[in-house]
Amino acid sequence: MRTSTRERTQRKRAALPPGTLVYVGELAEGPARLRAVIYDRDNVEKRVVATDRIPMPDPASVMWLQVEGVHDIDTVQNIGDLYGLHMLTLEDIVNTEHRAKLEEYDDAVFLILKHLRLNANGLLEEENISLVLKKDAVLSFSAHRQEMFDPNRERIEAANGRFRARGADYLFYTLVDSVVDGYVSIIESFEDRLEELEDEVLLRPTQACVQRLHTLRRSMLHLRRAALPLRESVTQLLRNEDALLGSEVVLFLRDVHDHVATVLDSIDHDRELLGSLLELYMTHESNKMNEVMKVLTIIATIFIPLTFVAGVYGMNFRYMPELEQPWSYPAVLLLMLCMTIGLLLFFRRKRWF
Amino acid sequence: MRTSTRERTQRKRAALPPGTLVYVGELAEGPARLRAVIYDRDNVEKRVVATDRIPMPDPASVMWLQVEGVHDIDTVQNIGDLYGLHMLTLEDIVNTEHRAKLEEYDDAVFLILKHLRLNANGLLEEENISLVLKKDAVLSFSAHRQEMFDPNRERIEAANGRFRARGADYLFYTLVDSVVDGYVSIIESFEDRLEELEDEVLLRPTQACVQRLHTLRRSMLHLRRAALPLRESVTQLLRNEDALLGSEVVLFLRDVHDHVATVLDSIDHDRELLGSLLELYMTHESNKMNEVMKVLTIIATIFIPLTFVAGVYGMNFRYMPELEQPWSYPAVLLLMLCMTIGLLLFFRRKRWF
Amino acid sequence: MRTSTRERTQRKRAALPPGTLVYVGELAEGPARLRAVIYDRDNVEKRVVATDRIPMPDPASVMWLQVEGVHDIDTVQNIGDLYGLHMLTLEDIVNTEHRAKLEEYDDAVFLILKHLRLNANGLLEEENISLVLKKDAVLSFSAHRQEMFDPNRERIEAANGRFRARGADYLFYTLVDSVVDGYVSIIESFEDRLEELEDEVLLRPTQACVQRLHTLRRSMLHLRRAALPLRESVTQLLRNEDALLGSEVVLFLRDVHDHVATVLDSIDHDRELLGSLLELYMTHESNKMNEVMKVLTIIATIFIPLTFVAGVYGMNFRYMPELEQPWSYPAVLLLMLCMTIGLLLFFRRKRWF
Amino acid sequence: MRTSTRERTQRKRAALPPGTLVYVGELAEGPARLRAVIYDRDNVEKRVVATDRIPMPDPASVMWLQVEGVHDIDTVQNIGDLYGLHMLTLEDIVNTEHRAKLEEYDDAVFLILKHLRLNANGLLEEENISLVLKKDAVLSFSAHRQEMFDPNRERIEAANGRFRARGADYLFYTLVDSVVDGYVSIIESFEDRLEELEDEVLLRPTQACVQRLHTLRRSMLHLRRAALPLRESVTQLLRNEDALLGSEVVLFLRDVHDHVATVLDSIDHDRELLGSLLELYMTHESNKMNEVMKVLTIIATIFIPLTFVAGVYGMNFRYMPELEQPWSYPAVLLLMLCMTIGLLLFFRRKRWF
Amino acid sequence: MRTSTRERTQRKRAALPPGTLVYVGELAEGPARLRAVIYDRDNVEKRVVATDRIPMPDPASVMWLQVEGVHDIDTVQNIGDLYGLHMLTLEDIVNTEHRAKLEEYDDAVFLILKHLRLNANGLLEEENISLVLKKDAVLSFSAHRQEMFDPNRERIEAANGRFRARGADYLFYTLVDSVVDGYVSIIESFEDRLEELEDEVLLRPTQACVQRLHTLRRSMLHLRRAALPLRESVTQLLRNEDALLGSEVVLFLRDVHDHVATVLDSIDHDRELLGSLLELYMTHESNKMNEVMKVLTIIATIFIPLTFVAGVYGMNFRYMPELEQPWSYPAVLLLMLCMTIGLLLFFRRKRWF
Repeated sequence: MRTSTRERTQRKRAALPPGTLVYVGELAEGPARLRAVIYDRDNVEKRVVATDRIPMPDPASVMWLQVEGVHDIDTVQNIGDLYGLHMLTLEDIVNTEHRAKLEEYDDAVFLILKHLRLNANGLLEEENISLVLKKDAVLSFSAHRQEMFDPNRERIEAANGRFRARGADYLFYTLVDSVVDGYVSIIESFEDRLEELEDEVLLRPTQACVQRLHTLRRSMLHLRRAALPLRESVTQLLRNEDALLGSEVVLFLRDVHDHVATVLDSIDHDRELLGSLLELYMTHESNKMNEVMKVLTIIATIFIPLTFVAGVYGMNFRYMPELEQPWSYPAVLLLMLCMTIGLLLFFRRKRWF
Repeated sequence: MRTSTRERTQRKRAALPPGTLVYVGELAEGPARLRAVIYDRDNVEKRVVATDRIPMPDPASVMWLQVEGVHDIDTVQNIGDLYGLHMLTLEDIVNTEHRAKLEEYDDAVFLILKHLRLNANGLLEEENISLVLKKDAVLSFSAHRQEMFDPNRERIEAANGRFRARGADYLFYTLVDSVVDGYVSIIESFEDRLEELEDEVLLRPTQACVQRLHTLRRSMLHLRRAALPLRESVTQLLRNEDALLGSEVVLFLRDVHDHVATVLDSIDHDRELLGSLLELYMTHESNKMNEVMKVLTIIATIFIPLTFVAGVYGMNFRYMPELEQPWSYPAVLLLMLCMTIGLLLFFRRKRWF
Repeated sequence: MRTSTRERTQRKRAALPPGTLVYVGELAEGPARLRAVIYDRDNVEKRVVATDRIPMPDPASVMWLQVEGVHDIDTVQNIGDLYGLHMLTLEDIVNTEHRAKLEEYDDAVFLILKHLRLNANGLLEEENISLVLKKDAVLSFSAHRQEMFDPNRERIEAANGRFRARGADYLFYTLVDSVVDGYVSIIESFEDRLEELEDEVLLRPTQACVQRLHTLRRSMLHLRRAALPLRESVTQLLRNEDALLGSEVVLFLRDVHDHVATVLDSIDHDRELLGSLLELYMTHESNKMNEVMKVLTIIATIFIPLTFVAGVYGMNFRYMPELEQPWSYPAVLLLMLCMTIGLLLFFRRKRWF
Repeated sequence: MRTSTRERTQRKRAALPPGTLVYVGELAEGPARLRAVIYDRDNVEKRVVATDRIPMPDPASVMWLQVEGVHDIDTVQNIGDLYGLHMLTLEDIVNTEHRAKLEEYDDAVFLILKHLRLNANGLLEEENISLVLKKDAVLSFSAHRQEMFDPNRERIEAANGRFRARGADYLFYTLVDSVVDGYVSIIESFEDRLEELEDEVLLRPTQACVQRLHTLRRSMLHLRRAALPLRESVTQLLRNEDALLGSEVVLFLRDVHDHVATVLDSIDHDRELLGSLLELYMTHESNKMNEVMKVLTIIATIFIPLTFVAGVYGMNFRYMPELEQPWSYPAVLLLMLCMTIGLLLFFRRKRWF
Repeated sequence: MRTSTRERTQRKRAALPPGTLVYVGELAEGPARLRAVIYDRDNVEKRVVATDRIPMPDPASVMWLQVEGVHDIDTVQNIGDLYGLHMLTLEDIVNTEHRAKLEEYDDAVFLILKHLRLNANGLLEEENISLVLKKDAVLSFSAHRQEMFDPNRERIEAANGRFRARGADYLFYTLVDSVVDGYVSIIESFEDRLEELEDEVLLRPTQACVQRLHTLRRSMLHLRRAALPLRESVTQLLRNEDALLGSEVVLFLRDVHDHVATVLDSIDHDRELLGSLLELYMTHESNKMNEVMKVLTIIATIFIPLTFVAGVYGMNFRYMPELEQPWSYPAVLLLMLCMTIGLLLFFRRKRWF
């Protein structure tokens, strides 16, 4: 059984000689899938783009270019050349295991995010999303279909012009916000599991609880590893007062910062609770052991001496005068009864039952 | 058994598309209840306000508007429009599970507080209070009746003009102070419980103690989670020298800061004590186990060999010359006595009793 | 048994509506006791002061006013009015459980200290001392007789003018120094106890050790809780270069800072040692358990099979041919001997004894 | 068995009187091996250099001087004199156990790195690499052959002028990058081992797991000890904006910084997982013990009383009326059956099986 | 057994009324021993100095005055008066248990160091060294003979003028360096012990290991307590750019700083290893216990039922038809064999052996 949520079909060296793009991630084939959404206050245009006809942004509208399939190095390179992205940025984009981080350039903001989701087994799956914010465009790169961004696509169309009246920075914010919302719902699901585990440890503690506590802690650490650099990145964005971000979007980003901070707070809080639950389990275990030992000790301590007495009168010596007396047998039974009562009183005094 | 103090009847996504207010909290119906207290040095006027006749503050007096029932989104929206509150502020107000935080605007201070109280089972119940301080008014929002603020209402009337001579900032301070007073009395009640638990662990340690230690630690963490952001908020208010806060109220707020700091100090101190108590319990458990094992071992180690001797002379071999001798029986009894004494001396030397 | 060092006979809410002084502390009656020491380079005057004739300082001399019994709210209020103390300062003075802290005003320094002392049972007793430093006067407030300051009184008289040649700031320093000296001697007494406990855990570990380790850790935490805010206060005084403190007294205060820092260092060091001792005890316990179990196992494992063999030949079957042979009995005894030796060799190989 | 990866054949005092170079490290003989690579955009020249003909850099080209064998103090001293290195720098170079660190001089950057590699037994081997960056040259010192830098040598030749077009600072960066790449692949190998261990602890926990957990933690700490000062060094380089580093190389170094940070993050994350695994093992152990104890207790508790009953009717009293009745034997067997069933029900109620 | 390395024959209050020197330390008698080394580039003069003829420094040469025996308060006072040392400095010098610290005055640097050495029993012994650096002189104070400085004395003479060409600041540095070298060799000896302990815990774990782990941790904490304030002191010296320290000596001091930092790093690293070793021991213990319990359980579980069967057929009922059959005895033996094999299979399935 493998509890790891990540499967590496292809894994190359994390750091490579600069000057050549090398894809790091699961094996994949075929060209990348490019989808563009171009909108202004009044119009929305959605289309699938051929990899050899990459559109350039138009100052009068906002363009969102979704690049799905970063294994297609040539396309990434082309986009990079077209949009003037730095070589190192491209390298980070095609490394699907790169750490979450923020880079600010004069004319672009580059952000790597970890999109997390719970799969059917309750394990975390991770996908790197690279966002590039330019003056009039947002590029989003990922290895797979960007399903988490489907609501954002819908909202561009649906919103009665309010969304579309805003710039690329607002689009950038909503994408970050979608990922963070995922974190929030994951931590909520974790806290529900934690409450169930708490009930279980209190009422029916088993070794399986401990394994589940361990798995939960592992997932918490995983989430923390994704959220921690994101909080740093957003703090950095807010501090630097990047020219690409309008003052209103800064307000929204502060809200995002609050959400990530809440997630991280909850993780710390929950890890301490996890530790406390484990201790609870440990004391329960040792308590149960004590109970078992007491039962054994009470039974053994009562019957072993009695058996000895019976053994004595089972000896075959010729000269054992007691054996001949008619009152001997009841006397011995009485003696045994007294021993039993005495020991029971002793255990009672020791509060063993 | 559910030890959680929070029950979610309705829980939506914590972060929502900006532009629409969505209530997050327990299911509730009906319009919000609005109560206004308007006072100046000489007069106090209290009245219940209809949701369609929201009063505006008058520079000559101070108004306190209590909004009870933030599920009534329309009313909150109306008040927000009337008082010029930011959309994000309104969203935070109607999210009854939002993290405690402070936002400072040019013409308003917005503070989310966690009001805590101990219910009949000794568990913490939490309610979000949102306070908005404007030049001449304080707005307080909550999901339920704001009973914790009843003494404040009374003091406005009762105080011989001293309270009423001060501005809205002072009213704001007294509301924050009421919540913090709640924290102080909760931590005191926790410390009383901790002392009882200490006595119990020292004198009558049981598994139930550990569960209570766990519950107490959980509640401590809960209180800490509420107090930590409040301390940050007050620090921020004191540092920023907000124009809405008079210099005297700053002094009072420093006092509030002291109280929150004391609460947090006590929590850290008490958590370490809790850990120490748990270790005490653990060593007690292992000690008790040792005792049980010793009793078993002493009894078994004495009687098992004796029973063996008795067993030997209970064998039915035809040729067992000892059996025929008249001195055999007493000799064997004597041998058994010697074995017993020898073993007892051995245990005594090992300091087993 | 109550190990708490603090007994609350009267405990009111820690935070109260500003504008009314409310005493928080043990029940006490009667007026406060006021003692004044007024001195300049050449003269010392000591007298008991009536509560209605509170003296004012004279620029030509230094006055020390000792106020013993802060339950007497009226007197505290009078002194406050006379010396121009802030309402909040007075509130903190009459709260005998207030956290240690420093407040700096333009014309006064206000410091709350925790005076600690070990009582006959080796437990810490705590008393709040409030010091107010004015240009020419020091006020010291407490709930009880200020015995820890008796040496300071004597030194004012005794010192051949050297003490008296210095200002109120120097007196203030010596009072703080007296309290810190108490901390130093307490931590020394703790370290002596710790060494005794170490010897005990190494040589004669018992459950009582663990209780004493717990009590010691508790007291350490108590001392830390008193010393930590004092270090902060002194650091703050040194940083702010308060006009009331002469440059020489600043040097002395740096010394006080060193002492408090040493105390806190020692506490951290000792807490880690305490933890190490507890682990030592735990491993000792588990070791002892292992020993007990081995004795039981060796005895049981040897005699249970022997008893079985004896049991077999104690059966009453009519046709048991071995029973009839004259060599059977010695043969069985020999068999038993071999079994015993075999098992002993087995245990030896397992290094059980 | 020695698990230490470091063998000291010669170990002198770490700190020595300044003014004399003393080699600290494994015993070695013979002169150092010097290899020079001199290149500009168009040409590459590689040659082995005699220790008495040390080349000087030429502003028109970049020189990389590899010094293998720092035990040869005279050669190190000569190079130091020729290149104007500080005495203390030379001392640090010939101490093969010096801590990783960075020194910045006006005309040179001096960096000590720990090159780590996993040997055949999965243990970490450490080698100190000292790098000196001058305007037109990079010096690299080590005790042994610098095999980890062979790819760098090849790349200088292979790259179609791109590598060679850059300056000494870029060469310096690639050398640091090679060492950090080693860290990244080590941490990946550690995480693979950790996953295997996790499976083992979950499925087949043995004492050997714990030893392997301990060894892994030890290696993690070793790696951390190497990476921590390197992160500090790179941070320092980035902050100081050293004139020797071009703006592009600064970008590359930021990338190196990211990699080291990722390694350190992973170590912290993995250490917490290691701790969690150990707890898992502990609870498993105590669980297993409970199981063993239950089996013993059930068997003993059932049969000890039965054996006692059998013992009673094995006594040889003359007057035991039951013995004479024909229904006695089946009655006793029935009694035994009932006792057994009763005890089994008792254990079932206690959920022992 | 006392493991403490410190014996207090006389211990007074750590803080005393300023104005009177009070010696704190072991009882000692007789005058202090004063030794002066006066040197310039060409000459060295060494002499023992009478306590009433304390030499003053001459700007043309460097003087090192070694004061051995700070219990001689009068001499310390005289030197203090002569060299213009502050009263508080003198108090710290005669307190042989004062915390390590640095004080910078306009014309002097005052440093308290803890000289540590391992005694024959492998325990740490501590001695306070107080160094005063003046323009042309270094004073070194201690309670005993300053043997650790003998090599420094020799080097002044031996070095071919290089040492003597430098100023008092260089001498000051070499003295600090000597003490730090002691720390480095102590931590190396500790790490050797730790490796031995690791082998022992892995191969022959006994309770004695745990005691040695505890002693080692204790010594580590002791070393840390000495090194931590020294690192702070050196950092402070480097930051403040004290006028008394030449730029070259600052370079050397940075080297000292590196050494102390390495010592502290190693201590943290080793403490974590110590913790890991202890856990290893604990799991070993519980493992061993499991083994013991299994042996007991296997033996008892096999033989107790067999003994019961034998007991049944040892009963003396008159009507037990089985007893009369010739095949009964072998049948019972066969039954017993089957029971044994069944139980062995059960244990095998549970992987108990």
